[in-house]
Amino acid sequence: MQQSTPTPPPAPHRRALLAGLGLAAATPLLLGVRDRPAAPDPAAGQRNLAGGRPVLLRGASLVLTMDPALGSGPLGTVENADVLLRDGTVAAVGAGLPRPPGASVVDVSGKLVLPGFVDAHTHLWQAVIRGGCTDRDLFGWFSGCTDPQRARLTPSAVHSFVRLAALDAVQSGVTTLVDWVDIFSYDLVESYVRALAGTGVRFTYAMFPPKPDAVLLTKVKRELVDPVPLGSFQVATHAARAVQDHNRAHWEAAQELGVMLNSHVLERPEQRADDPMGVLADIGALGPKLLVNHAVHLTDAEIAAAAEHDVRAAHCPLSNMRLASGVMRLGEFARRGVKVGLGLDGGTNDSSDFHALMKTAIGLQRARAADAGVFPQVPDVLRMATLGGAEALGIADRVGSLTPGKRADLLVVDPAALNFAPRFDWVGQLVFNGRPENIEAVFVDGRALKLGGRLVDVDTARVVREAEAAAVRLRATA
Amino acid sequence: MQQSTPTPPPAPHRRALLAGLGLAAATPLLLGVRDRPAAPDPAAGQRNLAGGRPVLLRGASLVLTMDPALGSGPLGTVENADVLLRDGTVAAVGAGLPRPPGASVVDVSGKLVLPGFVDAHTHLWQAVIRGGCTDRDLFGWFSGCTDPQRARLTPSAVHSFVRLAALDAVQSGVTTLVDWVDIFSYDLVESYVRALAGTGVRFTYAMFPPKPDAVLLTKVKRELVDPVPLGSFQVATHAARAVQDHNRAHWEAAQELGVMLNSHVLERPEQRADDPMGVLADIGALGPKLLVNHAVHLTDAEIAAAAEHDVRAAHCPLSNMRLASGVMRLGEFARRGVKVGLGLDGGTNDSSDFHALMKTAIGLQRARAADAGVFPQVPDVLRMATLGGAEALGIADRVGSLTPGKRADLLVVDPAALNFAPRFDWVGQLVFNGRPENIEAVFVDGRALKLGGRLVDVDTARVVREAEAAAVRLRATA
Repeated sequence: MQQSTPTPPPAPHRRALLAGLGLAAATPLLLGVRDRPAAPDPAAGQRNLAGGRPVLLRGASLVLTMDPALGSGPLGTVENADVLLRDGTVAAVGAGLPRPPGASVVDVSGKLVLPGFVDAHTHLWQAVIRGGCTDRDLFGWFSGCTDPQRARLTPSAVHSFVRLAALDAVQSGVTTLVDWVDIFSYDLVESYVRALAGTGVRFTYAMFPPKPDAVLLTKVKRELVDPVPLGSFQVATHAARAVQDHNRAHWEAAQELGVMLNSHVLERPEQRADDPMGVLADIGALGPKLLVNHAVHLTDAEIAAAAEHDVRAAHCPLSNMRLASGVMRLGEFARRGVKVGLGLDGGTNDSSDFHALMKTAIGLQRARAADAGVFPQVPDVLRMATLGGAEALGIADRVGSLTPGKRADLLVVDPAALNFAPRFDWVGQLVFNGRPENIEAVFVDGRALKLGGRLVDVDTARVVREAEAAAVRLRATA
Repeated sequence: MQQSTPTPPPAPHRRALLAGLGLAAATPLLLGVRDRPAAPDPAAGQRNLAGGRPVLLRGASLVLTMDPALGSGPLGTVENADVLLRDGTVAAVGAGLPRPPGASVVDVSGKLVLPGFVDAHTHLWQAVIRGGCTDRDLFGWFSGCTDPQRARLTPSAVHSFVRLAALDAVQSGVTTLVDWVDIFSYDLVESYVRALAGTGVRFTYAMFPPKPDAVLLTKVKRELVDPVPLGSFQVATHAARAVQDHNRAHWEAAQELGVMLNSHVLERPEQRADDPMGVLADIGALGPKLLVNHAVHLTDAEIAAAAEHDVRAAHCPLSNMRLASGVMRLGEFARRGVKVGLGLDGGTNDSSDFHALMKTAIGLQRARAADAGVFPQVPDVLRMATLGGAEALGIADRVGSLTPGKRADLLVVDPAALNFAPRFDWVGQLVFNGRPENIEAVFVDGRALKLGGRLVDVDTARVVREAEAAAVRLRATA
């Protein structure tokens, strides 16, 4: 039997660069390292994390910029290019970029670079009910799993589950997420936002208040969310005739706060009786400040109205498939120009695998149409997963593409893996062969949250252990 | 910035056990180790790989035996149990098993153990066209991707792609696979079988000969496949009226060789014109020695005939979804008692992710029925992925469950991961949250092919590099 060589610890010059990048030496920097920076400075890491030291990603084999002005085709692809990150932004994309003074250089030759995934709709706390109620539709899953568990949540449990699920999202390439949260007490919300803020992900806390309560919404936004540099706020609702007054109050609060209203709409056919689109029209909410989730069972007229008013939508194909909710008429939304992002819809309704989400967005339409030519195709889902999501959330001026000046939210994918190689059509492979484990690095706002295939400065085993312990404690109160 | 501790190299006593298990010290044995065996013996590894040294998997938190006689429910689950492997078989499953003299003990506390996945239908060489022709249906994909690439294959290219794809399958938990191969020349076939044999996976080489050629089939079976301990043989065909004489000759050759006939059947609605089920009936092939793949567009009468004659079927939901082939009437097959396994259908039609395959088997039916109660449910897909596949292939006397006496093909899954924890319904989590990366260990015929999350004695980087180089050489001949 051959003895192969153990993976060596980082060499001294690697350690120095790791320190320069603000990384623990324990994180194997599988991304090659070309240059040795000056002697490590204990504060250098923090400065880098805050965007102080430029990072030059050198020699990516393929960059999907999502900006047609920067490259070829609808995804603006560029072969053999560098990407320069400075002050938390994408400073430049192109071949042979000069190395700015003090920049760290990371060799990404052989790798793909693309914008981070934008999860337009999730419920992270539901990590506590993973694998539960798999034989139920939406309503059965509420009564059997969601509602009983939510009733038992404590601040510490919320923190454990949200941190676990948010870190799972980050390791899977999610750099922005919108969390629709129906958790009410201030201490739970405080714990939730603290967990999100601690992960470094860009997030929107969409708060569904128990009853119209502009004071609470304002307090949560001002005290808890606004202080987090990467945090933003939305008002969440469930549009339905029976609670039209609540919906109107939520919409008014959203306008007052200058944020979007975020509503579930027609996930199940039975919700036709609630006439949610009619309600949203009646309260005057149809417009670019409205985000509707699922939107599976809209009529032609409702899709037309959404398009006409520039309403935004989040499509959740893995969830729709699991809960037997039906197949969203995605092609009709696209044909009318509605801005649609993709959503994982909770720790429950599948893992945080955005590759699986993109594949299923394609596959569900094909299962219905029995036609491989229907919308969406591979470039469509890659766009929806990134820039499309940013457009739906109204943040495409800041994220979603590698257009210089935008915040540096991006992924490095290593295709040199048994499940991904050899190169045939890398763009197709990203969607159909990629797995979260192929995502070698994740940057949010210029900060490296994952490098060398591992989360940076996260004791993953401890995060898992604490979530497990919290789940055991919750069960004890059942 | 906190400096965390680098992962330590294996401690001396770990190294000793790794040697005892026949493992390179470089493989981090993340499975805990309880006992220290006697001083390492250079030949011990080989003996273990051949099944000589018993291995006691100690204290699994949950064992899915797939044998209702061994545990609870349809999956025969047992909590807190040991699994003893001896002479390549499962020797015992139960709590507190005594440690046989000389046995290596592996701590699997906190882990799940289940039988390996049985991939009832694949085409491994197609790893060379990963991500290709994603906007095509079956026929467009043949003409645009499959046919041109197959025409250029060389023995060395075949070896590179098949080894890559087979190792990807193994790392994803596949312990048995059936490869339907339409590659003709003896030197290519030799290279194909050698690649399969080198991976340690249990395989069936289903050979589609260019024309009726019992001599070639016999030669390949006797010279190439029979000498491989874990290899077996089938005759492959495409049933259709236009080639009914070929189909008959293939069926006669299969009978002569005592093996199954393996045919694609009604993957596309257009193939109704070929009347494949009528042809298979006319040549007398309907029976337990016939395996039909896809079987999407069968009539009620055809499903009834398949059931009546105990015809076996392979369902390929990820492929069907990608190629817009339609949704197999899986519930009707199940209701009539047809033995159905799951198939990945090639390196192309998605990655080797069996979790995704199981999820999609559930989801496609729900997408059509808009009912979360339809067949299959979580236990159904776990059974189809293991014992059901073995039954479809006629090898359930040897594999597919952890029934003592069967060959030891099994997986250890570590649920302590960001995408899997915390425990709520582990059986549901296996299907809906699991990823290949959670599969910590894979045993085939008692031999460890994956341990500590890594393939044993495989230079993965080299396998990938060689497949990449082979793909580059093929492109140069285009």
